Amino acid sequence: MSITLYELAGAEEDRRFSPYCWRIILALKHKGLDFAGVPWRFTEKDRIAFAGTDKVPVLVDGEVSIHDSPAIAAYLEKTYPDRPSLFGGPEAQALSRFYVDWTDLVLQGALFRLIVADIPALLAPIDADYFRRSREARVGTSLEEFCADREAKLAALRQALAPLRRTLSQQSFLSGDRPAWADYTLFGAFQWARCVSPIKLLEEDDPVYRWRAAMLGLYDGLAGQAKGFAV
Amino acid sequence: MSITLYELAGAEEDRRFSPYCWRIILALKHKGLDFAGVPWRFTEKDRIAFAGTDKVPVLVDGEVSIHDSPAIAAYLEKTYPDRPSLFGGPEAQALSRFYVDWTDLVLQGALFRLIVADIPALLAPIDADYFRRSREARVGTSLEEFCADREAKLAALRQALAPLRRTLSQQSFLSGDRPAWADYTLFGAFQWARCVSPIKLLEEDDPVYRWRAAMLGLYDGLAGQAKGFAV
Repeated sequence: MSITLYELAGAEEDRRFSPYCWRIILALKHKGLDFAGVPWRFTEKDRIAFAGTDKVPVLVDGEVSIHDSPAIAAYLEKTYPDRPSLFGGPEAQALSRFYVDWTDLVLQGALFRLIVADIPALLAPIDADYFRRSREARVGTSLEEFCADREAKLAALRQALAPLRRTLSQQSFLSGDRPAWADYTLFGAFQWARCVSPIKLLEEDDPVYRWRAAMLGLYDGLAGQAKGFAV
Repeated sequence: MSITLYELAGAEEDRRFSPYCWRIILALKHKGLDFAGVPWRFTEKDRIAFAGTDKVPVLVDGEVSIHDSPAIAAYLEKTYPDRPSLFGGPEAQALSRFYVDWTDLVLQGALFRLIVADIPALLAPIDADYFRRSREARVGTSLEEFCADREAKLAALRQALAPLRRTLSQQSFLSGDRPAWADYTLFGAFQWARCVSPIKLLEEDDPVYRWRAAMLGLYDGLAGQAKGFAV
């Protein structure tokens, strides 16, 4: 049985920048599962329609196809119970849910206001047009206008990171001594930013910076070596 | 061996309103441990100095005294391993840390701006004076001025609850099917508010309201029957 992961890519096939796909890439590495990453663009909806969705990640494992990153993580945990646990038990799996929701609504929300205007230039032309139209409709103005006053938005991001900063000043990873799903979930957001924007998000003396550096170094530096900008 | 918990009280001895004490009250119930709750006021620093702190909760278990709510929770888990787990394993215990930090910095911060001006009237006179002076020095203005424009602050609280709301629309408790330390931690903040302020924080159709009602009903309605205001 072979595993295939459909991953969002930019104009350059190796710019894999989806935060949700990064969660699953690292979850697959955590489980020690080999997989083939297949580049996919925003406008290639028909290529993943077989999975009943129009968004990546889509994971295909033999006869099974599955989408939505928490659902994929739950699938991997259930299907490969003898591999290292992605969560650390049912209570930890339940506790991971708030990390997903905080990442989606707070962390990625704050990052979106900082980096979204950097994205169109990195996309294939047909995707750039789709991306700009759909996101500008969502935010009600041009992406450049939406991302104006980066200093204020950077301050808001760093303020939003306050609880994360305090946690990571007390332990190496959110999941304890070793990273697991909650870490991959939050890290996916930072990796999304690194892949598409040169903006310096964190100061070196920030515990979040230290944690992100550790995450970038996991699995032979997989995320740190992926195409993106310096952090 | 008997367990004693020093708990913050108002002018009325049975108004036990500390969010940190409520975490431990529910943790002790979770573990099925009997304890004697001892009322304590802000200005009675000398009564808990033996524990090396000037803040409650202070837990005394036989020869051991311990303070700081996460440290007390960790102590209870380690000392009473045969009782129901407060966390659900080491990964879940590590994942609980961010809930504490989010509660302290985000949830309680948002609640403080709404309710702090309601507190002095409920305190013994000597405590009321201490409380007002120390808190007004911290916020740089009168408590009444600090709490002005409740509508805006209530909107800010409800916005801050967005990730919690999404999580609790998907599962009964933060810890899954049954509550545990993360639930007690967040609930302590809501119980603090209920004990000192008549302000209506949540709408009935909010998943957070449903969860709070379940928490109020735990252990024969312990928190729901404690002295406070209707929710």
